[in-house]
Amino acid sequence: MTKTITIAHGNGGAENNELIQKIFYKHFANDILSKSEDAAVIEDGRLAFTTDSFTVSPLFFSGGDIGKLAVCGTCNDLAMMGAKPKYITCSVIIEEGFSTRDLEKIVKSMKNELEINGAIVVSGDTKVVPRGSVDKLFINTTGIGEIEHKNISASALTEGMSILVSRDVGTHGATIFAAREGIELESSLKTDCASLYPQVKALMDANIKIIALRDATRGGVSAVLNEWARSSDVCIEIKEENIPVQEEVKGICEMLGFEAIDLANEGTFILAVDKEDELHALDVLQKTHVTSAIIGTVTALYKGKVLLNSSWGTKRFLDLPTGELLPRIC
Amino acid sequence: MTKTITIAHGNGGAENNELIQKIFYKHFANDILSKSEDAAVIEDGRLAFTTDSFTVSPLFFSGGDIGKLAVCGTCNDLAMMGAKPKYITCSVIIEEGFSTRDLEKIVKSMKNELEINGAIVVSGDTKVVPRGSVDKLFINTTGIGEIEHKNISASALTEGMSILVSRDVGTHGATIFAAREGIELESSLKTDCASLYPQVKALMDANIKIIALRDATRGGVSAVLNEWARSSDVCIEIKEENIPVQEEVKGICEMLGFEAIDLANEGTFILAVDKEDELHALDVLQKTHVTSAIIGTVTALYKGKVLLNSSWGTKRFLDLPTGELLPRIC
Repeated sequence: MTKTITIAHGNGGAENNELIQKIFYKHFANDILSKSEDAAVIEDGRLAFTTDSFTVSPLFFSGGDIGKLAVCGTCNDLAMMGAKPKYITCSVIIEEGFSTRDLEKIVKSMKNELEINGAIVVSGDTKVVPRGSVDKLFINTTGIGEIEHKNISASALTEGMSILVSRDVGTHGATIFAAREGIELESSLKTDCASLYPQVKALMDANIKIIALRDATRGGVSAVLNEWARSSDVCIEIKEENIPVQEEVKGICEMLGFEAIDLANEGTFILAVDKEDELHALDVLQKTHVTSAIIGTVTALYKGKVLLNSSWGTKRFLDLPTGELLPRIC
Repeated sequence: MTKTITIAHGNGGAENNELIQKIFYKHFANDILSKSEDAAVIEDGRLAFTTDSFTVSPLFFSGGDIGKLAVCGTCNDLAMMGAKPKYITCSVIIEEGFSTRDLEKIVKSMKNELEINGAIVVSGDTKVVPRGSVDKLFINTTGIGEIEHKNISASALTEGMSILVSRDVGTHGATIFAAREGIELESSLKTDCASLYPQVKALMDANIKIIALRDATRGGVSAVLNEWARSSDVCIEIKEENIPVQEEVKGICEMLGFEAIDLANEGTFILAVDKEDELHALDVLQKTHVTSAIIGTVTALYKGKVLLNSSWGTKRFLDLPTGELLPRIC
């Protein structure tokens, strides 16, 4: 570890993992935490439990705001464990001088998104800090969900399984970057920020056996695929051309020097299913987003690695993202 | 509500209540939240669930640090509902450039305090924000506890019951103020910050029927008593001379122009029991702190009000604290 914490330590990628392992897991070590799932499974597998703090800047952006994000983020982590979001806590840290009207707008966004999930806020906390101690407003949401589909796990992938993505990738990262840099967009690019429980429920209602499920937030699709390859000790082979990316996101990626698969999403997930379920799963996903796609397959070629196959036959490893990426993306 | 949020909106007193009512309860309204207890009671009364964000400044102070505080604060809210702290989430927001060594010190403090409670961290989140976006480090902890003593409630006080305090009051507020202002203290004044579950367990093991229990954090003893008087629609009469306050805390209060009963505590609770249990309860409390005391009684004199009786026979109402008090006390 470096002597001081750097922006890269919050990137959702390699340095972030190092910080978590060397400081937090080291001291807090226990069987539940070390599973590194999107949410902890507690109470004999009945409940899922997860936390997230939101520091996104700007607070309001195309397609969402920090309130919507705070509810989606935590509810999605529950949904990704096959759990129905149920009870949420909401803790807000507000900078002195913050607009009461903006605060109410944010709380209303939270309320709307809670209704989509069928969840309620049961406990809260409000701190106000002097000017300069925080940049405007941060929100923590922590949630409990009731597990409806058991045994979803990053460690459960085996050879032959199929990998799907629920929609086109990178819109959240691109939207926040554009908003922050004041880039005028001609079209309607907006964040993918959305509650994912309805889509997970649709998969369950269709009796699809979900093997692994994870929303591609910080670190993007690259982080999810690498974590799965490592946790399950398999190779994940991806057809690069099958990864759906909007033209506008591609344009912003070129400006940034980033790849869309490294960008954060807030309403996009990766799904692993048995080969025989792939078309059925795709059919269910496409009812919400026509851009959803089968992007790859699990093999034994390079265990613990993600392999990108291009349409002209070249192959390269896709690594866990490193470096600064975009701070305060969520 | 004012157009912008002020420091007073985070005081644990009147303005804080207004913010919570007019913005958060208004939109999040539900039966569990509106009970305004220290923790939400969920899952048919089996579990307690609570959240707290910690922004204390300085991060290290006499008798504790933000890590110890973050575990005590959330575990105590569970203990105050008669629950054994069980699962904790930990979400940390770190300013770029923060010392890795200090971070590890804080995490170690958390670990020590978790052991006292017999609780584990099962899920976490780490955000790093650019310099100036947060002052050093904030922590959110959210916890689930298993309820061992049912029906503890701020609304359960009736005439004749006794009110006790678990130790001398105001040390946390006085310690933070002294640390912040660089006041050199001759003696050993330190925060009361401590995990309260062991004391609650001692009360339960002694078969004392706990009517109401609340730790006197932001807003101090005054806030707890006022909230109880209002929730239970009773008068709480306090003998002012019976409230234990250390000499050094009194001195700092004089400098500040505050009263010790308005100052924040982080390991001090108020307990309501039936009259016939008061001496037994006092005996149990005094095994931990010899300064614990019976401070008052529930009457029907002025419903919804707290009455302070001085030793020379004068009476005055004790109000919910108002104004700025000390920001970033917890």
